[in-house]
Amino acid sequence: MPAKLLIGKAVTQKMDLDIQLDVQSLKSACINPKLRIIIVGDASESMAYANSTKIIAEKNGVRCDIEQLPETTNQLEFINILKQRNTDKYIHGIIVMRPLPKQINEWAVMYFLTPEKDVDCFNPVSAGKVMIGDITGFPPATAQAVMETLRFYEVPMQGKEAVILGRSMVVGKPLSMLLLDENATVTICHSKTKNLQGVCKRAEILIAAIGKAKMINADFVKPGAVVVDVGINVEEGRLYGDVDTESVKSVASAITPVPGGIGTVTTRVLLKHLTKAARLLNP
Amino acid sequence: MPAKLLIGKAVTQKMDLDIQLDVQSLKSACINPKLRIIIVGDASESMAYANSTKIIAEKNGVRCDIEQLPETTNQLEFINILKQRNTDKYIHGIIVMRPLPKQINEWAVMYFLTPEKDVDCFNPVSAGKVMIGDITGFPPATAQAVMETLRFYEVPMQGKEAVILGRSMVVGKPLSMLLLDENATVTICHSKTKNLQGVCKRAEILIAAIGKAKMINADFVKPGAVVVDVGINVEEGRLYGDVDTESVKSVASAITPVPGGIGTVTTRVLLKHLTKAARLLNP
Repeated sequence: MPAKLLIGKAVTQKMDLDIQLDVQSLKSACINPKLRIIIVGDASESMAYANSTKIIAEKNGVRCDIEQLPETTNQLEFINILKQRNTDKYIHGIIVMRPLPKQINEWAVMYFLTPEKDVDCFNPVSAGKVMIGDITGFPPATAQAVMETLRFYEVPMQGKEAVILGRSMVVGKPLSMLLLDENATVTICHSKTKNLQGVCKRAEILIAAIGKAKMINADFVKPGAVVVDVGINVEEGRLYGDVDTESVKSVASAITPVPGGIGTVTTRVLLKHLTKAARLLNP
Repeated sequence: MPAKLLIGKAVTQKMDLDIQLDVQSLKSACINPKLRIIIVGDASESMAYANSTKIIAEKNGVRCDIEQLPETTNQLEFINILKQRNTDKYIHGIIVMRPLPKQINEWAVMYFLTPEKDVDCFNPVSAGKVMIGDITGFPPATAQAVMETLRFYEVPMQGKEAVILGRSMVVGKPLSMLLLDENATVTICHSKTKNLQGVCKRAEILIAAIGKAKMINADFVKPGAVVVDVGINVEEGRLYGDVDTESVKSVASAITPVPGGIGTVTTRVLLKHLTKAARLLNP
């Protein structure tokens, strides 16, 4: 039996309903949830992402403003803008698009985004909150999207062997902490791992987040495993995940597609974080 | 051949030399490195730990003051004291002994210790810094002591299978991030892990930090593995690690003893963090 496709759409439909209820309840308390996306310079990829986020936000009744700063914005100017947005009571969540231009040192500015509005884990304190399990924090939206998808499809995690391929700050590292919270046994592997195939093949839940198109084929997958494909790779104008779905679907029990999988859930996570932030900011 | 003992003393002797050089150099710049340990109430275990830290600090030329607050100190009073110590320019590092009495909510106060003086990772932002690899941060001293010991004994980590038994905030979770920085393949297992023995037996580096006396015997250890025992368990007045050393030493290639292993290194890590903090605070 070929693997079940864990379609993002089913997850997002459920999440949209939850978000809309949340937004209604906020609005009835005179709180208009608003997201601010800050882009420095002329970053067309960032702009495309911001625009698609804005569309989904507005469909859910959430206002989303995209603030484009000049390419020449310097570090101090950028910090001052963050500080102004931090204290703007009409803004509940702030996303800083990366990469930033080179005159702005990300490590020097990230601590200035207030954790209360840090809906996509830009400030390291948000990562710290993920590690200690502080529920007032916001994990990176992509890592959280993996969890929402696994939960929606009722994939058992307790005591399961979860293997994460990739150790980035947006997926691998924080996701390891989220999976631990669900009592999975968690392995993080990466480009320096020896016998990568063997390590991945132990996984009952395999999460591919390494950024190499179609790298994970059936040889990496334990029969019956649940495979989550977080990769978004563009090659010759086409979108590929990190997983070779055709090869893997004969071995895995379930797999998230690309496109139409985790990526679509990520935006809803941002909106859930936003409504949560709006609520925590207006107790 | 029985396992080599990775004695803490060899590590601490080297670290003491480094610390003393650091302290000399700070003093010659008129900076007198000073550690403040804060204890709330009559916690005899905390006091014993603080006193032994003080002795080692002073042997290394570092002043260490133990500040004992009344058992009845309330949360606001505690936060105000933290704020005063944060701004006291003669204090470079602050350790808050845990557990705190029940009227002080740890989660509410931890964010008030300034990260610049947080030499033992009390504030979650310090955990975030460990996760993102921000070198201005201070990992928990025990997790860092494991790394210092592995490095001192030149245990290769790159590409190795490291298995951490235990997911605490003082060892397991942050240590997983530190081992990833060294390019190890890292697995975190815990009480809910199925087939714990099998998972541990994969380890080329096995770190036991689960708090169960002599739980890890030879059946958990891959032949030739390096075993790090972080456990400190007192039973009938005797000190035991998490590892049954007698059983394991016929299988492992190397093992840290308890007592005389990681625990002794931990205090030196605190002092290294203190001199680093003193330097960063006085650029």
